[in-house]
Amino acid sequence: MKTIVFLCAGVMMGMAGTAQQHPSIMLTKANVEVVRQGATAYPLLQQSFKSLKKDADKAIATPIEVPLPKDAGGGATHERHKRNYQDMVACGMLYQLTKEERYAKFVKDMLLQYAAVYNTWPRHPKKKQIPGGKMFWQNLNDCVWQVYTIQAYDCVYDYLGAASRKTIETDLFEPIVKELSEVNGEIFNKIHNHGTWSVAAVGMTGYVCGRKDWVEKALKGTALDGKAGFLAQLDQLFSPDGYYTEGPYYQRYAILPFLLFARTIQQYQPAQKIYEYRNALLKKAVNTALQCTYTNKVFFPLNDAMKDKTYESEEIVYAVDIAYSDMQAGNDLLDIAQQQQKVIVGDAGLKVAKAIAAGDAASFQYKPMWIRDGADGKQGGIGILRSGDNEEQSCVVFKAASQGMGHGHFDRLNVLFYDNNTEVFPDYGAVRFLNVETKNGGNYTKENDTWGKQTLAHNTLVVDRQSQYQANEKKGEEHAPELVHFSTGSNYQVVSAQDNNAYPGVQLRRTVILFKPDGAPASLLIDVFNVQSAQKHQYDLPFWYQGHITNAPFEIAANTQTIQAMGDKQGYQHVWLNATGRVKEGNGVITLLNNKKFYTTTFIADTALRVQFITSGAGDPEFNLRNEKAFVLSQPAAANQTFISVTEPHGKNNPIAEVTTGATPQVKAVKLLKDEAGATQLEITYKKKMYTITLQYNDKASFITIN
Amino acid sequence: MKTIVFLCAGVMMGMAGTAQQHPSIMLTKANVEVVRQGATAYPLLQQSFKSLKKDADKAIATPIEVPLPKDAGGGATHERHKRNYQDMVACGMLYQLTKEERYAKFVKDMLLQYAAVYNTWPRHPKKKQIPGGKMFWQNLNDCVWQVYTIQAYDCVYDYLGAASRKTIETDLFEPIVKELSEVNGEIFNKIHNHGTWSVAAVGMTGYVCGRKDWVEKALKGTALDGKAGFLAQLDQLFSPDGYYTEGPYYQRYAILPFLLFARTIQQYQPAQKIYEYRNALLKKAVNTALQCTYTNKVFFPLNDAMKDKTYESEEIVYAVDIAYSDMQAGNDLLDIAQQQQKVIVGDAGLKVAKAIAAGDAASFQYKPMWIRDGADGKQGGIGILRSGDNEEQSCVVFKAASQGMGHGHFDRLNVLFYDNNTEVFPDYGAVRFLNVETKNGGNYTKENDTWGKQTLAHNTLVVDRQSQYQANEKKGEEHAPELVHFSTGSNYQVVSAQDNNAYPGVQLRRTVILFKPDGAPASLLIDVFNVQSAQKHQYDLPFWYQGHITNAPFEIAANTQTIQAMGDKQGYQHVWLNATGRVKEGNGVITLLNNKKFYTTTFIADTALRVQFITSGAGDPEFNLRNEKAFVLSQPAAANQTFISVTEPHGKNNPIAEVTTGATPQVKAVKLLKDEAGATQLEITYKKKMYTITLQYNDKASFITIN
Repeated sequence: MKTIVFLCAGVMMGMAGTAQQHPSIMLTKANVEVVRQGATAYPLLQQSFKSLKKDADKAIATPIEVPLPKDAGGGATHERHKRNYQDMVACGMLYQLTKEERYAKFVKDMLLQYAAVYNTWPRHPKKKQIPGGKMFWQNLNDCVWQVYTIQAYDCVYDYLGAASRKTIETDLFEPIVKELSEVNGEIFNKIHNHGTWSVAAVGMTGYVCGRKDWVEKALKGTALDGKAGFLAQLDQLFSPDGYYTEGPYYQRYAILPFLLFARTIQQYQPAQKIYEYRNALLKKAVNTALQCTYTNKVFFPLNDAMKDKTYESEEIVYAVDIAYSDMQAGNDLLDIAQQQQKVIVGDAGLKVAKAIAAGDAASFQYKPMWIRDGADGKQGGIGILRSGDNEEQSCVVFKAASQGMGHGHFDRLNVLFYDNNTEVFPDYGAVRFLNVETKNGGNYTKENDTWGKQTLAHNTLVVDRQSQYQANEKKGEEHAPELVHFSTGSNYQVVSAQDNNAYPGVQLRRTVILFKPDGAPASLLIDVFNVQSAQKHQYDLPFWYQGHITNAPFEIAANTQTIQAMGDKQGYQHVWLNATGRVKEGNGVITLLNNKKFYTTTFIADTALRVQFITSGAGDPEFNLRNEKAFVLSQPAAANQTFISVTEPHGKNNPIAEVTTGATPQVKAVKLLKDEAGATQLEITYKKKMYTITLQYNDKASFITIN
Repeated sequence: MKTIVFLCAGVMMGMAGTAQQHPSIMLTKANVEVVRQGATAYPLLQQSFKSLKKDADKAIATPIEVPLPKDAGGGATHERHKRNYQDMVACGMLYQLTKEERYAKFVKDMLLQYAAVYNTWPRHPKKKQIPGGKMFWQNLNDCVWQVYTIQAYDCVYDYLGAASRKTIETDLFEPIVKELSEVNGEIFNKIHNHGTWSVAAVGMTGYVCGRKDWVEKALKGTALDGKAGFLAQLDQLFSPDGYYTEGPYYQRYAILPFLLFARTIQQYQPAQKIYEYRNALLKKAVNTALQCTYTNKVFFPLNDAMKDKTYESEEIVYAVDIAYSDMQAGNDLLDIAQQQQKVIVGDAGLKVAKAIAAGDAASFQYKPMWIRDGADGKQGGIGILRSGDNEEQSCVVFKAASQGMGHGHFDRLNVLFYDNNTEVFPDYGAVRFLNVETKNGGNYTKENDTWGKQTLAHNTLVVDRQSQYQANEKKGEEHAPELVHFSTGSNYQVVSAQDNNAYPGVQLRRTVILFKPDGAPASLLIDVFNVQSAQKHQYDLPFWYQGHITNAPFEIAANTQTIQAMGDKQGYQHVWLNATGRVKEGNGVITLLNNKKFYTTTFIADTALRVQFITSGAGDPEFNLRNEKAFVLSQPAAANQTFISVTEPHGKNNPIAEVTTGATPQVKAVKLLKDEAGATQLEITYKKKMYTITLQYNDKASFITIN
């Protein structure tokens, strides 16, 4: 509380004492000239400037349209209002960099048009919530509109003249600020990414328009008590490691208002050292966001996540530029900037483009790590194992984090496996068709709740065909898994966590290891899922996979003429049972061919174990689901149970050259040597060599031994 | 017959009269020095040389292995023997270009090892046919081995010395020639791509070893009567337009022995003008092969075809180089060579690389065309429509060709649609996992017959749930469809064909049009499938699609808890029925989102019409099928019937920038104005403009009118 009070007092003082200059956010008055010169000197800035100019020129050549809001996400008026703020930002920047009035005039005309009609609009007819948005169906989009528009306004501020400024501020920005902070005040005061967009919009508008009252509300919440607002969000939404509790997809989304508002504070109040707040939290947040991607550029699709979102997205362009320019992030961020093929034309983008032109870029440093979740860092976390270079990297994501609020999935101890720049064991992600109006207005479809969030949709254990916490979000928020162990050695990386709360009376312990046997071309993924319970339960452990099964040499009874949904709730209503296999005692083997490479999973089986082959897509009358496939290790009735599997990437199948190499897996046997409450010991035969791996659950110091 | 006799006599004379030089096939003695110099001067040749040298250096650093043949396709001994001929060719070429003996020694040592054991080998234990292969499971692979190996032998011929040559020719090549032309003489004499590989192997070996008897057999068949052999194959396997009757996938495969053997004949007997045979047939064949690809580089997957085969494959590298170098093919072939990123290091590759370095390359000229099938050009053909440039091309493939022998599918009047560099309405292709030993030894699986070849697996009409010709290949060979009309206009391209034999008593007429309305960003695919019959039948017209359905605004009853295979034969046992829709009279609309672009199909419906949503994958106990999806326009009982649909590519959905544009289709209505035995007339409303299209089936001159 002290920090907050001090900081805010400082901000207010600063605002009173400093004459405002425009522009002052991404592009600053003092740097306009040097950015203009940089746009001819540094290729990446030049390219970004040209692209911005193209957008601006297209905008000014087109009649201005400010339609009455009508459509949901993806619809025409929705897309038009989005386009409008993008056009205004492009023209605002171009005006500063070229001093050509036609660009400023476009922004002025458009803002005056908005100012003329904004107050005549009713609430949005397709409002998604109560009270809902005004320009867009949800308030969130209204906030985003303002975060961008205020930057455009900042660029043309001096051009506008006092009369136009008054009209725009009085007839547009004031009512928008009221709309965000009062009409939708509940969102404004929420500790949530929607709240962040809202306070950033209001706070940035306050700085640019010199309205201290707006700034104060944005920083401390409408009650001005610091229980809400930007600083409370910084305190509560991130872990000390910079992990955003909703997960990587929303971390990507939220990072933009966090950084933009922070940069605005920094510009107006550098003495406040917002970048250093909470041990330079925002810098960590940028690094953590990038560490939560794979070499295919895609964010780990944990919780509600669109699976095609990469670090090329606009938000991460801002984040990388600001982190590199303002926060002394390393030269490996330049690698990302190069791949983005874009910088934000402004002070930060200039520094990035200049450094790249100087040859400073280094490969992005992906690192195995345990990232803590929770404001206090004690709400579990995300384990990431990585083996191999960025060209052909094996990566394991182990989710042992907290529920992650409303977008969280019931997927504690979930494992994702990537290799060869593609998914091997993926997560379904969200059930949503973003910006496709015919799909529930571009919003999450109902199957996001009935399928996407359910435990069965993930690579983790389902007990008694129930989702964790019976898919009750509130209960899920009460507990998080605990880290047991994370370490890396010369030929292995390991992460282990446990959860005692997702299923009453059942202790879940999962350990995943990337282990590279001598002379192996890639690491093996070793997965030990240990379950302890006094009662007997049904245990289903799915491995959702990409690719095609090319070998499963055990007895399989397939349902060839009729298939049925496996159940009627908790996700089971959404999967078809294609076939059931049983392995004679010993090892079962399943080989996949995925992106021209083989993956063989060798698992330990007893006579009771069944292998179910399933496909998502049942119970889907509106065609909202993809047909994904899994094999499920299913134990019909056991108290204690340890699922052990070893997945080996091997070989290549080149369909162009028609050459196959390494089609035979080298893991010859996997044996369970010892399985007690406190320890699991297994033996893996790779080629002719045997390795014994011992896990001691209660010994955090020497948790793992490999001999 | 006269031509054949004359030519063969000429060949024999020539062989007697010309002193043989080595090497004389892809690399010739006279050009070794200039190719060596070119490998430092022209980037593409340099790169290809480096890659070849890398292979050769790797080969000579590895102990030679000539294992006893044991495994089927994709297995270890199979892949080893394949690798061996590739290594020998690389080392043979390297020896010529560097004169370093270690490369020649490798070829010599390996050939002597083969010579020492070849005659001790039994027939291949996993032989695929009777009598089967010897080194490989099928004779075909033995032939391929020899086609490559003889080139390596040619390169080290002078180095070997007489004694080694005698051993190799007596103990290896003679028995191989006997194996190919006698033990497997039936294949050798077949008019089929396996026969082409066989005669090329024997003929090329004959030229290099100076064995006229082998050459003669290769050219005229073992009976020496010209009814079999290379020339008979040239006469019978290709149409006058250079279309190979088995289809594009096998055309790609067969083109290599055709061109390699032709070049060998040309080298030894230039006076015979083999390149000019049948009006320069082979040059046409290369162009036709390339015209049978889409801008994603992939061959149209007609008949049995692996869907990932592109023109980057080795065979087409040979074909492009030889066609450009020896046959005066155009500079647009250099575009393909650039994309292949490779030339064959030798005389032809030199010319290609030199021309590219000189900046001669032009974009490959894809053209709309009708390609005749059949040796006489009268067995139907393939229609190809193309609109747009190579960057974003719409392409329609219309299959109205003959059965295409054993690899043919029952898919007369099948339509494939491509756009935006991807498949929109695809063909399933073959059911095969090439070189994956665990999948039926890498060969076609049984579902290739029960699914891949069946009519239902294609985008063409199924009558009474039976495949065309009841899937009887022999009957299918008896008839081919007939071209009704092919033409192109300023804003349209059209192809129409009919078939009266696939279903007794039913006349099938299909017309597909790419039509670009005024101001439209892309052409519409208009599809008019007219069926005439005296009796009532069930008509099912599937549209297999890629992407995800985002809109289908009509009454749909989905099977959400149980789905069943649709039938028990003719492909229906392999599809699940997911849902059935019915459209109130008028137009039905289905929108897909595919590769970030929308495709809306607007079709005419009456009250009886049902729309079935189906997925392949039923009846598949060994997981050999992919789950592909189709909507089927199904008319339960009708005599005459015309299915009319218009598919419009529109809009973009950018998930990174989160922008959607053009999500609403502009085709507002499709009406059938007139439908008589001789003519169909329809009206399409695009935006606010109406277009009337009239098709007059019996008027070949003014078949189509668009107003």
